[in-house]
Amino acid sequence: MKLYEFTGAPNPRRVRVFLAEKGIHVPFEQVDIMSGAHKSADFAEFNPIQRVPVLVLNDGTAISESMAICRYFEAVQPDPPLFGKTPIEIGMIEMWNRRMEFHVFRPVTDTFRNSSDFFKGRIPQVPEYVEVARRAAEKSFTWLDEVLGNQRFIAGDKFTIADITALCAVDFARVSKIRIQPAQQNLARWREEVSARPSAKA
Amino acid sequence: MKLYEFTGAPNPRRVRVFLAEKGIHVPFEQVDIMSGAHKSADFAEFNPIQRVPVLVLNDGTAISESMAICRYFEAVQPDPPLFGKTPIEIGMIEMWNRRMEFHVFRPVTDTFRNSSDFFKGRIPQVPEYVEVARRAAEKSFTWLDEVLGNQRFIAGDKFTIADITALCAVDFARVSKIRIQPAQQNLARWREEVSARPSAKA
Repeated sequence: MKLYEFTGAPNPRRVRVFLAEKGIHVPFEQVDIMSGAHKSADFAEFNPIQRVPVLVLNDGTAISESMAICRYFEAVQPDPPLFGKTPIEIGMIEMWNRRMEFHVFRPVTDTFRNSSDFFKGRIPQVPEYVEVARRAAEKSFTWLDEVLGNQRFIAGDKFTIADITALCAVDFARVSKIRIQPAQQNLARWREEVSARPSAKA
Repeated sequence: MKLYEFTGAPNPRRVRVFLAEKGIHVPFEQVDIMSGAHKSADFAEFNPIQRVPVLVLNDGTAISESMAICRYFEAVQPDPPLFGKTPIEIGMIEMWNRRMEFHVFRPVTDTFRNSSDFFKGRIPQVPEYVEVARRAAEKSFTWLDEVLGNQRFIAGDKFTIADITALCAVDFARVSKIRIQPAQQNLARWREEVSARPSAKA
């Protein structure tokens, strides 16, 4: 079994933090996306979408998409549960994880993808979209600050996959100069707490 | 228990098709998003994100996000499994469902959101983004046609949640004049087969 990943990107980080929370050790292999190694024919056999991370199992099965890899490991080793155990927990944690993906992670990465030199020539960048995405991300930070005024973690009183998605998004936002504002004390308190977990360094 | 939804939108359809495949009956209540009923203070109590669908349980718990609602019901009634049973199935089906969401559903709905009269004044539309999203959707149709040349359903030999996501996206694409091309015979064959299931009419 091997996890093909890239340390600098936000999606592979979600998987690394998840594995650290589970205490699961998997050999990693870096795929240097800066030099385009994920565009090679060899890599495309694992993932025709040509993105990291990809988990390749011993039987050759290749699972791509960060959340698919996390769900594979959640099924293999349910404890500690990061996607919930009861039907209501499962539903509510997925709801919060999706909210973090669509309203935080997505506008943050859209800002970067459409404005960064890295993506120039790699994707059709739309400069007009950058400020729309940036404002959406900033608005979500404000909303997240309110949410975290009422609950310790994103999905309630337990650390879950939704915290991992939110942490990776909030940290990656700094690359595009989207930062937690001084008035957003709940968001800052939460970030400090989740960043202090050993998994955040994974 | 009640499902707040809107018949004309693609996300609520995913939940209706899912419930029909499971044989689960839930009372529906239409939220007329055309007249802005999802923006009311009453509705915001269920979902501050102000989108349909939302499932409200008897204890008042409100679960929004289509996939969160589906996962709640998958946990309550596992059969027939639409998200997989073994760890590998769970990982692979989530991978395919995510691919359908990010590479088919998203560009299809992005095209609509940024070009339709319905969203004018409701979201900051970016006209320059429309053709980028449209081309991405068309490219994904071509890729999907290749995929379906090798397997009966999106995730392999079984009907899964990934087929539901893909069907709702492919059908909704027609609103933006993105259609299955005559040469895309595998995609057309698949669409005919999944559309013939009683759930497709839900």
